[in-house]
Amino acid sequence: MLSGGDVAAKREEIRAYFHATLDRYEQLFEMLHGDEAYFRKPISLRHPLIFYLGHTATFFANKLLLAGLITERINPRLESMFAVGVDEMSWDDLNTAHYDWPSVDEVRIYRNTIRSTVDRLISEVPLTLPIGWDNPWWTILMGIEHERIHLETSSVLIRQHALEYVKPHPAWEPCRKSGPAPQNQLIHVPAGVVSLGKSKADPVYGWDNEYGRHIAEVAAFQAGKYLVSNQEFLAFVEANGYGMESCWEEEGRAWQRHTCAGYPTFWIRHGSEWRLRLMTEEIPMPWDWPVEVNYHEAKAFCNWKAAATGQPFRLPTEDEWYRLYDVAGLSEIPHTEPAAANIHLDYSASSHPVNEFPQGEFYDVAGNVWQWTETPIYPFEGFDIHPHYDDFTTPTFDGRHNLMKGGSWISCGNESLKSARYAFRRHFFQHTGFRYVVADAPAVQQDSHYETDKLLSEYAEFHYGDEYFGVPNFPKALAELAIAAMGDKPAHKALDLGCASGRATFELARHFDDVTGIDFSARFIGQGVQLAGQGVLRYTLTDEGDLVFYKERTLTGLGLDAVKHKVRFYQGDACNLKTLFSGFDLILAANLIDRLYDPAKLLSTIHTRLNLGGLLMIASPYTWLEEHTKKEAWIGGFKRDGESFSTLDGLKEILGNHFKLIQGPQEVPFVIRETRRKFQHTLSEMTMWERIA
Amino acid sequence: MLSGGDVAAKREEIRAYFHATLDRYEQLFEMLHGDEAYFRKPISLRHPLIFYLGHTATFFANKLLLAGLITERINPRLESMFAVGVDEMSWDDLNTAHYDWPSVDEVRIYRNTIRSTVDRLISEVPLTLPIGWDNPWWTILMGIEHERIHLETSSVLIRQHALEYVKPHPAWEPCRKSGPAPQNQLIHVPAGVVSLGKSKADPVYGWDNEYGRHIAEVAAFQAGKYLVSNQEFLAFVEANGYGMESCWEEEGRAWQRHTCAGYPTFWIRHGSEWRLRLMTEEIPMPWDWPVEVNYHEAKAFCNWKAAATGQPFRLPTEDEWYRLYDVAGLSEIPHTEPAAANIHLDYSASSHPVNEFPQGEFYDVAGNVWQWTETPIYPFEGFDIHPHYDDFTTPTFDGRHNLMKGGSWISCGNESLKSARYAFRRHFFQHTGFRYVVADAPAVQQDSHYETDKLLSEYAEFHYGDEYFGVPNFPKALAELAIAAMGDKPAHKALDLGCASGRATFELARHFDDVTGIDFSARFIGQGVQLAGQGVLRYTLTDEGDLVFYKERTLTGLGLDAVKHKVRFYQGDACNLKTLFSGFDLILAANLIDRLYDPAKLLSTIHTRLNLGGLLMIASPYTWLEEHTKKEAWIGGFKRDGESFSTLDGLKEILGNHFKLIQGPQEVPFVIRETRRKFQHTLSEMTMWERIA
Repeated sequence: MLSGGDVAAKREEIRAYFHATLDRYEQLFEMLHGDEAYFRKPISLRHPLIFYLGHTATFFANKLLLAGLITERINPRLESMFAVGVDEMSWDDLNTAHYDWPSVDEVRIYRNTIRSTVDRLISEVPLTLPIGWDNPWWTILMGIEHERIHLETSSVLIRQHALEYVKPHPAWEPCRKSGPAPQNQLIHVPAGVVSLGKSKADPVYGWDNEYGRHIAEVAAFQAGKYLVSNQEFLAFVEANGYGMESCWEEEGRAWQRHTCAGYPTFWIRHGSEWRLRLMTEEIPMPWDWPVEVNYHEAKAFCNWKAAATGQPFRLPTEDEWYRLYDVAGLSEIPHTEPAAANIHLDYSASSHPVNEFPQGEFYDVAGNVWQWTETPIYPFEGFDIHPHYDDFTTPTFDGRHNLMKGGSWISCGNESLKSARYAFRRHFFQHTGFRYVVADAPAVQQDSHYETDKLLSEYAEFHYGDEYFGVPNFPKALAELAIAAMGDKPAHKALDLGCASGRATFELARHFDDVTGIDFSARFIGQGVQLAGQGVLRYTLTDEGDLVFYKERTLTGLGLDAVKHKVRFYQGDACNLKTLFSGFDLILAANLIDRLYDPAKLLSTIHTRLNLGGLLMIASPYTWLEEHTKKEAWIGGFKRDGESFSTLDGLKEILGNHFKLIQGPQEVPFVIRETRRKFQHTLSEMTMWERIA
Repeated sequence: MLSGGDVAAKREEIRAYFHATLDRYEQLFEMLHGDEAYFRKPISLRHPLIFYLGHTATFFANKLLLAGLITERINPRLESMFAVGVDEMSWDDLNTAHYDWPSVDEVRIYRNTIRSTVDRLISEVPLTLPIGWDNPWWTILMGIEHERIHLETSSVLIRQHALEYVKPHPAWEPCRKSGPAPQNQLIHVPAGVVSLGKSKADPVYGWDNEYGRHIAEVAAFQAGKYLVSNQEFLAFVEANGYGMESCWEEEGRAWQRHTCAGYPTFWIRHGSEWRLRLMTEEIPMPWDWPVEVNYHEAKAFCNWKAAATGQPFRLPTEDEWYRLYDVAGLSEIPHTEPAAANIHLDYSASSHPVNEFPQGEFYDVAGNVWQWTETPIYPFEGFDIHPHYDDFTTPTFDGRHNLMKGGSWISCGNESLKSARYAFRRHFFQHTGFRYVVADAPAVQQDSHYETDKLLSEYAEFHYGDEYFGVPNFPKALAELAIAAMGDKPAHKALDLGCASGRATFELARHFDDVTGIDFSARFIGQGVQLAGQGVLRYTLTDEGDLVFYKERTLTGLGLDAVKHKVRFYQGDACNLKTLFSGFDLILAANLIDRLYDPAKLLSTIHTRLNLGGLLMIASPYTWLEEHTKKEAWIGGFKRDGESFSTLDGLKEILGNHFKLIQGPQEVPFVIRETRRKFQHTLSEMTMWERIA
């Protein structure tokens, strides 16, 4: 879709895909019965369907504006109403008094205006191939794929709507096949390496979270041959699984208690009979179809099964799903012909039996229903945010959104791809079930955390981010000064005391065999630990007001990957260090002394930790503040015996017995970025001391 | 003393002056009776005299170190004890447990070591003439003059010591003349101009506060022919003046209540007889000698006399004392021959009658006792601090230290000069009395205030001080951008809204006829008002820790003196401006909008204050903070309708109906200095808007 040689043909290909997408989406709403169906909320915490009818059109308007393809709003009033509100909201946000929805006709007319606007753009906007992220056409494709997503999510809302508001539709006929469920069984999956993430040169449109790279070794495990069927899940329901506290994770338990759920949300109990809600009808329970549950229910089932069998049942990780995909011999399913999978509406508007679509030794690795994984969505290394949709993924990097894989019967376009990475809150319902695995290895969680604490984010940028006002990276500059001063002195052990986020610790490891970083704050050293362990640090930066952007730094990108085994981080109090921290050839104390409660205590004993001839490097702006250091403990910056007594005077006095000042004082500048336009710009006075006694 | 052509002779002149000074000072202590006299405190809140014996020697050591004339302390233990403590202290500071004074002999030996050290330096230190501030010899003279000051202040302590601790001394014989006091009378002093302050080229040593320039027109007044005598003051005592609340200023009343004083401190009542305490004896009251009182007593006397006579009695100002000096036809009294005044110990070790030393139509304009003025000491324009004694004067610029003029019988060296400016707390006692004046004009108080509030000091420097990191002065740069953008548009009225300390207000007045500066903070506009009114702004800057230095900026130095009549400052709320503020050709809003509680209210109505075709210039780093602006009132810096909505977007939306964006956005940087090494470095986004409707 992104590449090709014939521009005119590409325009027509995209135009066709655009109209087909909108047609299919609008057709979905033909299942609604009467206007009220648009305005009654299917579930209490989400907007009524009228919103979703307008929303995908407004999304085009918003993104076309950002891309500069249009310069004015199409309909400011509607676009203000339809812009946000896709996610679950709190009660207040959804108070109906706040909304004066337009009529269905008005929204249809609005949709047509958008449709013709985009159609005109497809004819007129200059097109160069391939279409990359920066190409305005990317934004057109973004709008199309966005509508494809809502095709599926709106189909779930329709399935959650009261039956009186929906009606059968010939284009949305469900599967009529059903029978007894097959006996599930575990199949061995050998260990192997999986490779995830696409490159920006990939010829198929993707969302930001799909780009970058993640390679992992997956240990051997066993996986269910079939998705868990309604039949298989019934045993859990009948065993009172929903009431067995021990089966549920804490978050799942809270959900279960809140909802009082006793069985899957689309199951209906009529006396002793079980039925299943589809989009427009209820049918006798198709026991051989995959059960549809949220993550909590799937996880509780696994825990129940593990307890019952003594085997480590759980859900697969994202990596394990890729391993299944590989061993099943699958490859990307083209949308040009019917798939060997229940996907992109090639068969029915519903699930099919779990034993209908074999893929290698398994069934339904892709298609039928989405499959929950154990993996909260996280950014691949090299993750980047598309500037025209900067909050598509990043808000989900919170450890609370788990990935689903495989796609469902209604997944089209990007959704149907192997590379698709959709993540939902763990209590959400989609057309989603699960396959269990039995694995000795725990589910490896990739860190998805973006540091958003203001101070920690600022320090991440200070240590690992960009330079501002042409001021070189400060911890790096200090480390370079230290290494230069070392000359050919022994360089076994270095100590970065008050290491904060740890950049100098890493930089010193370019020269020293063994570098210890110590900071009072576990939160700061956490950044160094994370870089050493995971190789990546992610954080937000404030733009202006509440607007932020997202940043990632890797040890590899910083050229520090080769030294990470030489650094160790510890939490510690510089004024009360354990005796084991000694025998150093260099001690660096950067921006430390004016933050200690008793700087003299450190300085008067620090020679005991340094080898004779070793160097002590102190850098400080001498910003004495009572909140950190009581005035009695300042080592300078006051009048003594009637004369000004500077911190440098204090350093000379305290260190004089054991040290010789061999370099400095010299000012080393640093800049800490607070917002796009606001910075702290400080001069740290560096002095280099050689231990002589 | 500072100039000359013969270096060898100058060495000997200074050597002689040095030894004479030390000799005289040590001779003062010969009046003490027994060792205990050194260790008992004459008054409770000051050190015993042993301290003062050591202190003047330690002062030499400290200042010689600073000047680099010696490189090591002479006696660290004694120098730590003798360095500080000249001023009144609180009870805790003086707790005797803190002091383990050395013996008198030890201090004498220490003094001799210092004496021989300085003597050697006088022989050896290279000498170039004249001796300027930067010359190390200045510091030697500083030590000598410092000892001359303590000659007088220690003589006061001796006078306050119990009689058992003092004994007569042939070199310190008091005056034995006394008789009935003359009847005082008022003499007319015509109006005239006085010129105060010396230049750094002056050939006589001076303290920092004497340099600079102050020229004033003094209105006509009347002045007492004589200093107020003990006799004249007795009427006030006998009228129960000390108990008459209405006579006392508030601060004086508090002092009187605290001390329960009923008559002057050196007066002694024996039944119905009054006697007077001199340094080593009590004598029958010499009624024709000048009364010695503190400022409060002198002021109360004047107030009493004013109430009794209906005439505006008060103390003279410093300017008025200079006027008296001029009309009395006085000129600097050389110390080489006996003066026509009771000064520099030329006659006795005490006062003389008030009618003994005529000077023009007056008596004792100089000499006999110091004379209190109404004037709290303040810095002359061009005041500068000597780096080797940076706290000689500046701590007294607090409005609580009043100047004394004229010198006393013991004032030698610098103290005896017309240019000398000594100021004491108003409740202190020295050998000090007063002359009253009758003047219609109120006593003009010169501003002695150094802005020490951290924020205000930082803003003073931000607007009027130095540039850092090569970043040009921000309000000046904005004014220049504004003036350039005005081209040949009408330039009558400009408004600097959120003017803070007012620099842009002044800068705009280079181009506009009439510039109004408005700020919410009266404290900020106070700086602009002060510059416009007094032409000078003084503030401290933090060096490191508690160390500060002092800075002064004048309108003349900034090249803005010629425009000061075109600026006016008002306190006002930008969100609720009076309607009279309108009809402007330019409105500048610099670093304002993100500090308002309702920026939209200002922006949506600001066109009504601007002439059609006029310019609105907005500069802001868009640092939105909830403490200033509730989130609901931010005009940008958030997500709106799902998309990032910047402050610039908000400005365009709000201003769009009446303005055209004609320049910018462009970043204008600014730097705010916090300490010697710590700065805020910020980019303010400037946009220029022309009113079109």
